[in-house]
Amino acid sequence: MRTNIHTFFVISIILSCLSGFVDVHFITKRDARLDDRKDCPPVEGQPQPPTRVDTTARLQALRTEMLTAEVDVYIIPSEDAHQSEYPPSYDLRRTYISGLSGSAGIAVVTANKAALWTDGRYHLQADDELDCNWILMKDGVEGVPTMTEWIIEQMMNSTRKNVGASPFLLSSSKWKTYEEAFTQEEIMMKSVGANDLIDKIWTSGRPEKPNTPINALPLKFAGRSWQDKIVDLRSEMTKKHAGAFIVTSLDETAWLFNIRANDILYNPFVVSYAIVEMNQISLYLIGASTKLSQVPTDEETTEKLYQHLNTNQDGTCTGKTDLCVKVLEYNQSTLLADITTLAETSQSLKIWVTISCNQAIYETIPQSQVIQANSKVALIKSMKNSVERDGMQNSHIRDAVALINFMTKLEKEVKEGKKWTEVSAAADLKTYRFDQEYNRGLSFNSISGVGSNGAIIHYSPSNITDKQITTSEMYLLDSGGQYLDGTTDVTRTFHFGTPTEYEKECYTRVLMGHIDLALTKWPRGLYGRDFDAIARKPLWDVGLVYRHGTGHGIGAYLSVHEGPGRISISHSVNPSDEPLDEHMFFSDEPGYYEAGKFGIRLETIVMTEIVETEYHFDGTTMLGFKSITLVPYEPHLINFSMLSQKQIDWLNAYHKRVENEVGPKLSGEPLEWMKARTQTITTTSPASIILPSILLICITSILSLLK
Amino acid sequence: MRTNIHTFFVISIILSCLSGFVDVHFITKRDARLDDRKDCPPVEGQPQPPTRVDTTARLQALRTEMLTAEVDVYIIPSEDAHQSEYPPSYDLRRTYISGLSGSAGIAVVTANKAALWTDGRYHLQADDELDCNWILMKDGVEGVPTMTEWIIEQMMNSTRKNVGASPFLLSSSKWKTYEEAFTQEEIMMKSVGANDLIDKIWTSGRPEKPNTPINALPLKFAGRSWQDKIVDLRSEMTKKHAGAFIVTSLDETAWLFNIRANDILYNPFVVSYAIVEMNQISLYLIGASTKLSQVPTDEETTEKLYQHLNTNQDGTCTGKTDLCVKVLEYNQSTLLADITTLAETSQSLKIWVTISCNQAIYETIPQSQVIQANSKVALIKSMKNSVERDGMQNSHIRDAVALINFMTKLEKEVKEGKKWTEVSAAADLKTYRFDQEYNRGLSFNSISGVGSNGAIIHYSPSNITDKQITTSEMYLLDSGGQYLDGTTDVTRTFHFGTPTEYEKECYTRVLMGHIDLALTKWPRGLYGRDFDAIARKPLWDVGLVYRHGTGHGIGAYLSVHEGPGRISISHSVNPSDEPLDEHMFFSDEPGYYEAGKFGIRLETIVMTEIVETEYHFDGTTMLGFKSITLVPYEPHLINFSMLSQKQIDWLNAYHKRVENEVGPKLSGEPLEWMKARTQTITTTSPASIILPSILLICITSILSLLK
Repeated sequence: MRTNIHTFFVISIILSCLSGFVDVHFITKRDARLDDRKDCPPVEGQPQPPTRVDTTARLQALRTEMLTAEVDVYIIPSEDAHQSEYPPSYDLRRTYISGLSGSAGIAVVTANKAALWTDGRYHLQADDELDCNWILMKDGVEGVPTMTEWIIEQMMNSTRKNVGASPFLLSSSKWKTYEEAFTQEEIMMKSVGANDLIDKIWTSGRPEKPNTPINALPLKFAGRSWQDKIVDLRSEMTKKHAGAFIVTSLDETAWLFNIRANDILYNPFVVSYAIVEMNQISLYLIGASTKLSQVPTDEETTEKLYQHLNTNQDGTCTGKTDLCVKVLEYNQSTLLADITTLAETSQSLKIWVTISCNQAIYETIPQSQVIQANSKVALIKSMKNSVERDGMQNSHIRDAVALINFMTKLEKEVKEGKKWTEVSAAADLKTYRFDQEYNRGLSFNSISGVGSNGAIIHYSPSNITDKQITTSEMYLLDSGGQYLDGTTDVTRTFHFGTPTEYEKECYTRVLMGHIDLALTKWPRGLYGRDFDAIARKPLWDVGLVYRHGTGHGIGAYLSVHEGPGRISISHSVNPSDEPLDEHMFFSDEPGYYEAGKFGIRLETIVMTEIVETEYHFDGTTMLGFKSITLVPYEPHLINFSMLSQKQIDWLNAYHKRVENEVGPKLSGEPLEWMKARTQTITTTSPASIILPSILLICITSILSLLK
Repeated sequence: MRTNIHTFFVISIILSCLSGFVDVHFITKRDARLDDRKDCPPVEGQPQPPTRVDTTARLQALRTEMLTAEVDVYIIPSEDAHQSEYPPSYDLRRTYISGLSGSAGIAVVTANKAALWTDGRYHLQADDELDCNWILMKDGVEGVPTMTEWIIEQMMNSTRKNVGASPFLLSSSKWKTYEEAFTQEEIMMKSVGANDLIDKIWTSGRPEKPNTPINALPLKFAGRSWQDKIVDLRSEMTKKHAGAFIVTSLDETAWLFNIRANDILYNPFVVSYAIVEMNQISLYLIGASTKLSQVPTDEETTEKLYQHLNTNQDGTCTGKTDLCVKVLEYNQSTLLADITTLAETSQSLKIWVTISCNQAIYETIPQSQVIQANSKVALIKSMKNSVERDGMQNSHIRDAVALINFMTKLEKEVKEGKKWTEVSAAADLKTYRFDQEYNRGLSFNSISGVGSNGAIIHYSPSNITDKQITTSEMYLLDSGGQYLDGTTDVTRTFHFGTPTEYEKECYTRVLMGHIDLALTKWPRGLYGRDFDAIARKPLWDVGLVYRHGTGHGIGAYLSVHEGPGRISISHSVNPSDEPLDEHMFFSDEPGYYEAGKFGIRLETIVMTEIVETEYHFDGTTMLGFKSITLVPYEPHLINFSMLSQKQIDWLNAYHKRVENEVGPKLSGEPLEWMKARTQTITTTSPASIILPSILLICITSILSLLK
C-alpha cells in the first residue's frame, strides 16, 4: 500500500527529536547507549545488583520458539489483549521476559540481542532490574534509536526478515506503524496468531487467569445508569453512521455497564469485551454463567449481576422488553467469530473500533466496514457527571484525612528516632486508607522513596532496596486509594530535618511550576500538551528537566491513569489525545529527580471547570483548574523569597481550603500538624523590614534629645 | 484501502476542537455561522462594503464548467503547484473566485453554495472582501465545521458524489486526507488532471506567467556553495536509501542552488523544480535557454547563470567533470514524464518526496518506490550557517535604522498635525528601506493599520480603507525588507497621544508574553508548539486571546515565512513540523485584536542558540533565544507596574543593545527618538518611595529639636 505520510511524520519527528540533526553524532550516541549499563558485562566475582532478574534461560527458550515460528525478531509489548496499562499478573509477559517490573516498556528479542525501550520514569529502575543480556534503550534521551530504527539496523544483512508479534497484544495502530516503518526495508510484520511465544515458554510460576466476582456499582456512586449510557453511546454511533461499537478497553466496559471487580491489582476492572449494536448489547465475561447469579461480595451492592444487567440468569435476553445485556463467555476466538458474523449481516453495516483495539480484532473486520476513531465512551467517561464530581471531592477529603493522620505519626516518630522504612511506612499508610468510608483498597502500589530511591520515578520499595526514613534525607510519598465514590492519587515530598539550600531551591521550583499550572486559564478547545510547558518553565530557567508528563487523567473508582485527555509534552502526538474540556480530572505533578541523590514530586488532582475572567474575548469560553486534593505542602522545603505574590496568594488560598474542608475531620496532633503547615504566608518586602527599624532609631534619637 | 488512523485522528481532533462535545450545540453554532455575514443577504438599496468583490458571474461560469467536468463540488486551494504560501499573481485562483486577497484560505463551490475557510488572521478581512455569495467559515472558532465535514453534509442526499480538484494545486497529503475523510461516505475525490476549471474561466485580466531574470547569490551572502549543499543533501539521501530527491518548494530550489529572482512579489524565488540524483542534478526553469546566458541584473552578481551552475550555455552537462546542473525547460508534463522514466530505470530506486509535493507528482511515482518524508533541504536551510547568521543580524540593524528614521519623522509630523495615512506612511517607509545597503525591496506588503484597521490581523491598507494616523488611536506597523544578506520582519504598535488604561493593559500583557517567550530556555528536542502558550498566558489570565501562531521561521533573503520549525499551538499538528534547533530564526509575535477598536502586535525576530544555565541536568542541552530585531518599544503604552523584575531586566538589556548596536548608525532627531525610548527603567518599590519621606520627617524633627 502507499506509504503512510502520517506514520512517516510520527517516525521522522521521533527520529529528529532523539537523534538531533547530525547522524554521525547520532551513531556515536547510540553506540554509547549499548555500553551504558551499570556493571555490564558482569565482571568475574563481582556481584550483580540483587534486583536484577536472570533471563538467560528464558531468552534461550524464546529463541528456540522463534526458530520454530520462523521469526527473526520477536516483539513483546507490556499490554494485554485490551491494551491495559496495568494488565492482570497473568499477562505480564514483558516483565517475565525482561525482568523490568515497571508498567511501561517494550521488549525486542533477536537471535543474539535483547533490547528494552522504556520512558524516563523507568530509566533507573530498568538498569536495576534488567540483567546484562539486555540493552537498555532510554526513550526520550538524545541519540537513542526508536524500536523500528533499531530493528531495521539489526536486519540490514539478514536474508529472511520476519518480525513476529502476537496480534492480540499489539494495538492495530502500533501494528500499522511498525508495518509501515518496515515496508521500505522489505521487512515483514509476521503474526503468530493465537500462539504467543511467551505463552509457550512461560510454563512454570505463571499467575492464574483473572476471574474475580463482579459487583454492580450502585447509581448513588455511578450517577448515570448503564441504560442511559448506552443511549448516549448509540446517539454518537448514529452521528458516525456506525451500526456497532466494539468496547475493548477494560475501564470502558466497567464504566459503561457500572460494574466493578478485582481482575487487576489496584484496578477494579472486569476482563471483558462488549459489542454495542443498535438493537443488541453483548458482554463477554470470564465464567459468565457463575458470575451472573453470584451473591454480591460488595456490601454496597444490592443486585445480582443478572438483575443489574436486566438479563435472564443464563445471560440471554429472551422475553426481556427493556434494555438487556446479552452475556456470553469471554473467549478470543468466539469474539472474532461473532465479529465476522456481525460484519456479514449487512455489507453496509459499519463497525466502530478505537485505534487501541488489538490487531486481531481489527483485521477481522472487512476494510470497507471498519470505522476507526477515538472512543466516545472514553471521552464521555472523562467528563464526570455531577454525582461523580461530588464523589471525587468527598473521597479526596477522606483520603487527605488518612494521609495527614499517618504523616503526623510518621514525622513525630522519625524525629524521635523510631525506625521507619519505605516499606513499613507504605504498609502502615495502607491501613489508614482502609479505615476510610467506601475504601476499596489502593489505586496503585505506593511509591515510598527515601533520598536516592526517590529519584526512581516509579520506584516501588522492596526488602532489597528498602531504606530508612530519617531526618537527613528527603522522602517522596506517592500514593492513592480506590473508593466507591472516587479514585485518589497524591504525591508530597517531605524533609523532617534541615534540607540543603539546593534541595530547597529544587523543591521550590517544582512548587512554582505546580502552582503556575494550577493557575492557568486557557480557551476551551486546547490540549493539555499545549500548556504543559508552563509547569516546566521554573525548572528550565536553571537547566533542570523532568522526563515525564505533567498530568494524567484519573477515573472515578476506575483507573488511576485515564485518557483521553492528558497534560503532557510529547515528541510524537498521541492519536487518542483529546482537548481538555469541562469536568475532567487530571493530576498536576511536576517533579525533579537527581539520580543517586533525591527525588521531588508534587501531585495534586485538579478538576477542569469554566472560569470567570476580567474580560471576555469574542465569546471564548475560558477553562481553569480547581484543586481536588487537599494536603498541605512542606514548609521546610519552600524558599518563600523565590515565590511571586500570585504564587503566595494561591498557596494561602489552597491552605485555607485544607483548613476549612479537611480540618473539621481532624483532631489532636494531626489537626496541629495540618495547622502548622497551613499558616498564612505574609510576604516580607524590604520596606516592612527596614521601616520599623528606621522608625525605632528615629524615635529613640528624638526621645534622647527630648531628655 | 484500510481507514487511516492518523487521518481519523487529525479529523477527529479538529472536529472535537471546533465542535465541542455536544452535537446539538454544534449544529446550532454551525447554522449560526451561515448567517454570520455583515449586511448579508444584501438589503435593497443598502450599499455593500466597497471592498467586496462581485463573484456572481465567476461562480456561474465555474458551475457551468463543473457540469461539463462532472464534478458536484470543486475545491479551489490558495496554493500553486509548489504549494507556495505566496504564489505568483498568475496563480491566485482562490483570490479570483472568492475575492479574499488574504494569503490563507480554501474555497469550495457546490451547485448552489460557495464556502470559504480561513484562519483567525483573515476573519475580519474575509467578511469585508467576500460578497454575499459566500459562506464564511472561521477556522478555529467553536462550532465551525471542517471543510470535509461540510462537504459530506452537502452531499448527504446527492446521487453522484464527485469532489473535483486539480492534482497540481493540492498537496498529496491534503489529497489523501480528503480522500480518507470521504471514503466512509462513498464520496470520491476526482482529479481534473491538467485542466483546472479556474484556468478555464479566468480568461480576462489574468496576470502574466512569472518569468523574471535569475541572479546567482554570491558566496559572501550564501555562506555555502550549491555544490557543498548538494553533497550534504546526497548524504541525507544515502541515510534514507533514496536514489533521488525531488525539490518542489520554491524557497528550497532558490536556497539549494544559491539563485534568486522576482517571480513572486516580495519572495525572491525562481519558479522551478529540481531532481537531485546521486550522479545527476536536473533543474527546471521557465525560459531556461534565455536565462542561462542572460547578463545578471543584480549589481552584486558576477557570474552568468550557466557559469554559476557550471553548465554549458545550452543547459547540458556534456564534457563537465565537476558538479554540473542540467537545466531543462519548466513544464509540468515534461517533469512527470521524466519522473516516470527515472522510476523505470530501476525497480529498487527509491524517490524521496515531501508531504507537500503535489498529488500529480506523487501519483506518478510507483507506490513501491516512493519515500515520503520531511525535506532535509528545508531543515538544513533553517539552521543558518555563520555567514547567514551574521547577514541576518547586520540586515536587521540596517532595517532598524530605516524604521527608526522613518518613525521619528512620522511621530513628529503626526503630532504637528500634518496629514499622514496608513497608505502614505507605508509608501514613505518603503523609501527608507530602499536606501539601505543590499536592500532588494520589501519582504511583504506592509501592514499599516490605524485603530480598528489594526485589528485586521493581516490587513493591507488600500485607498478604500485608508485611515489617517492621529494622536488619538493606536497605530500597528508590521513591515520588513529583503536584503542580499537577510530578510526582516518587524512589528511595533504605537500611540502618539494618550492611550486609555485598557489599551495600556492590553499592550503590556502582549509585551509580557513577548518577553516571557524571549526569556524561555528549553531542552533541545522540543517543538515550538510545546511552549507557545508561555507567550499567551498573560493574556489568558484575563480572558484575552489571539488567534494566530506566536512565531514563524524566517529565511535569509528568502521567504518571510519559512518552515519547518514554528512556534504555534495547533489543533491539528502540522506533519512537517520539526523541533527547534540551534541557529534557527523565528518571529516572537504575540498580539491582541479587538474588532472595530484596535490591534496590538509586537514582533521581534529571535535566533535559537545554546544557552548557559545555572545547573545541568543529565547532560541536557538547553536552548534559548537571542533577539535579532533591535527596535525600541512604545513607553507610553507600557504599564510598568505590571511587569516583573525579570521582565524589566530583559527590557533594559534589550534597549541597551539597541543603543549600542543601532545607536552608532543614528544621528540627530532619530538618535534622540531612540534614546527617549531606551531609557533604563528603575522599579519604584514601596520602600524607595516611603523611606526618603520618613527620613526627611525624622531629620527635620531632630533638627528642629536641636535648635
